[in-house]
Amino acid sequence: MSILIKDVEWNSKPTDIYIEGNRIVEIAKEIHKPADKIIDGKRKAVIPGFVNCHTHAAMTLFRGFGDDMPLRPWLEDRIWPNEAKLTEDDIYWGAKLACLEMIKTGTTTFFDMYHGFHATATAVQDMGLRATLAGTCFDHFKPHLTEKCKRESEALLASMGQYSDRLRYAIGPHAIYTVSGELLKWAHQFASANNILVHLHLSETKGEVEDSIKQFGCSPVRYLHKLGVLSPNLVIAHGVYVDDEELRLLADYGVSVVHNPASNMKLGSGIRFLYDEMKKYAIRVGFGTDGCASSNNLDMIEVMKLTALLGKGWRENPVVLSAEEMFESATKTGASILNVDAGCIAEGALADIALVDLNTPAFTPNFNFISNLVYSANGNCVDTLICDGKVLMEDKKVDGESEILENAGKRAYDLISR
Amino acid sequence: MSILIKDVEWNSKPTDIYIEGNRIVEIAKEIHKPADKIIDGKRKAVIPGFVNCHTHAAMTLFRGFGDDMPLRPWLEDRIWPNEAKLTEDDIYWGAKLACLEMIKTGTTTFFDMYHGFHATATAVQDMGLRATLAGTCFDHFKPHLTEKCKRESEALLASMGQYSDRLRYAIGPHAIYTVSGELLKWAHQFASANNILVHLHLSETKGEVEDSIKQFGCSPVRYLHKLGVLSPNLVIAHGVYVDDEELRLLADYGVSVVHNPASNMKLGSGIRFLYDEMKKYAIRVGFGTDGCASSNNLDMIEVMKLTALLGKGWRENPVVLSAEEMFESATKTGASILNVDAGCIAEGALADIALVDLNTPAFTPNFNFISNLVYSANGNCVDTLICDGKVLMEDKKVDGESEILENAGKRAYDLISR
Repeated sequence: MSILIKDVEWNSKPTDIYIEGNRIVEIAKEIHKPADKIIDGKRKAVIPGFVNCHTHAAMTLFRGFGDDMPLRPWLEDRIWPNEAKLTEDDIYWGAKLACLEMIKTGTTTFFDMYHGFHATATAVQDMGLRATLAGTCFDHFKPHLTEKCKRESEALLASMGQYSDRLRYAIGPHAIYTVSGELLKWAHQFASANNILVHLHLSETKGEVEDSIKQFGCSPVRYLHKLGVLSPNLVIAHGVYVDDEELRLLADYGVSVVHNPASNMKLGSGIRFLYDEMKKYAIRVGFGTDGCASSNNLDMIEVMKLTALLGKGWRENPVVLSAEEMFESATKTGASILNVDAGCIAEGALADIALVDLNTPAFTPNFNFISNLVYSANGNCVDTLICDGKVLMEDKKVDGESEILENAGKRAYDLISR
Repeated sequence: MSILIKDVEWNSKPTDIYIEGNRIVEIAKEIHKPADKIIDGKRKAVIPGFVNCHTHAAMTLFRGFGDDMPLRPWLEDRIWPNEAKLTEDDIYWGAKLACLEMIKTGTTTFFDMYHGFHATATAVQDMGLRATLAGTCFDHFKPHLTEKCKRESEALLASMGQYSDRLRYAIGPHAIYTVSGELLKWAHQFASANNILVHLHLSETKGEVEDSIKQFGCSPVRYLHKLGVLSPNLVIAHGVYVDDEELRLLADYGVSVVHNPASNMKLGSGIRFLYDEMKKYAIRVGFGTDGCASSNNLDMIEVMKLTALLGKGWRENPVVLSAEEMFESATKTGASILNVDAGCIAEGALADIALVDLNTPAFTPNFNFISNLVYSANGNCVDTLICDGKVLMEDKKVDGESEILENAGKRAYDLISR
């Protein structure tokens, strides 16, 4: 299968792009080669697909189910009792809805963390996206559950042969307040031995830091350091509360951090995310939407805008957190964190790309495309999405869209009335 | 002209709405009456059109022209020299582009502040929106300019007969650091005598407050109080830095405040806007996008989301600033501030309404429509816009759209190379 995109804007110039199999093979002013499919790129700009480094895809079923509530009643009355009722089919359709939304807003790769691993994996497989799926572990500090988590994680890793190589497995110890040090250490060794990632919520709230100091005698990053589990395989979600010494530790061990501005703001977790400081320490910072239960959509363009606005806002400085940096975090850095050979438009890279419709007010005038993309547009500007060399959306249309909306909606309503 | 909207969702129920002339005349479960136009509302929800209470429409020409820059070089090197070159035609096409974007994102009424009054007025007239246009005054504390501003303001007011009654004139003294106390007092009297609004930037930055104390011996709101110009006709944009006593003054005199979260964040002006406190004092708080030179788009749904997220964020409280409150500020309160009989779906109200397409991921599932609208959707969810009983957009298409994008884009590029 080959695709030729004609006259698409790239670095402000009309460009042709040739895709063969799942790779970009040529980028030139004019390409004259036969192709199975030709896409007219006029008045469109090409960008790498976004990499959403932290979400809980199936939780899209809980979108808007309990906003503006205090944290405990929201979790205890709304989320947990309904999560307990989720079937594999619910998770499958919830994850499909999430994939549909990601395709429509320009995301080609995501890092998920949830239970019901195979249901999510099947949804991603069917929808054509690329994903690393962290199988969530909780042992609640109970040794028999620790062993159960280990066996389940081994089984998940061993099961990956059945899926496309667009899918990868990661281990997902939920958080330091739900997972024992023993399991964190095992996850670290298991990940190193098998060259997979570890995904962990960390330093999300002040309460978590206070509890860590009470329970473990030190703050969360120091606790992980004491356990010996800091490593380049570790990707932490949130990292809102970290001090200078912890930044140095994250940098020294090559740990990556995923910023989720919408959920950090909406849940009142904290707004002073140290993007600039992390960049200075050369810590890789990717972006995530978090799950739709807490932050309502999966739009990575909105994440870029929120990150820049919030960062400029609390620092009272219009110069920091530029549009270019936001774009890099949402594409190239995200791809680097997930070890995916994408996140840029380059010969040889994976053909994970999106075309943006420039024929809209958001891109008029278009003095600076990246600036318009980050500050003026939103995810709906994406017109065409290609992942792994396959067209998943063209002219804003995705195959099977109505069926997904109908089934996912129906399952969400059924679930809460069950 | 009559319009019948069939089966549209309103308060979660399928509803028929009958519009005659420029008013909603009937809302019922089923209406069987002949109409000049019938709109199928199935899988759509009806909302009042948004009221954008602070913008500079023609500045849409400067979208993305100098983001991430320090304030002074941005103003001195980018904005001011190019503003000085603006012709009436530039302003006309810039304002038309702004109107197009507002129509496409669900805004029916806006409060503008700019020079080139007649160019903007003509654009609004042609595009079919409703607007109050504040003619900007600057006298830079020079008496001969004070007199000039007075005469110009009188002339603008006198000229309104040539426009549709969708358009209203307001006086727009720019700010306390560019306008003398004498002119502020005159504007206040002129507004009271003619029952028009006064629009003023106030308490936007810390620097403005410090300068006010230095120059006038007190903070901005106290200075206005001393001048005797606080009144229900006064609408201040920003109001980021106000203390308790100033809140009481604003409340006592019925002054309205317009919150512009995107520009406050992006320019680093300040993030601790006192929405909750203002509501407790019964101060009317409307929302604005500000101009596209500073905050890049005119999407009022984004403003609702930013306000809620930022307010919850800096207060570290997920319960405050609910989706319902955001929606009320963006519709009903905005309409009340501008004295427009709209902002709600009610028999007898002006037919200024938008239909939202529910057949999208953003509204799936749809447990809480307002929550999805504020937290999950963006301005692109709007499918149909009716203003003053006329259909300005249907199926996301606006008459003359391509011509506006082309002309406005061309004028923006020409302008900066002139």
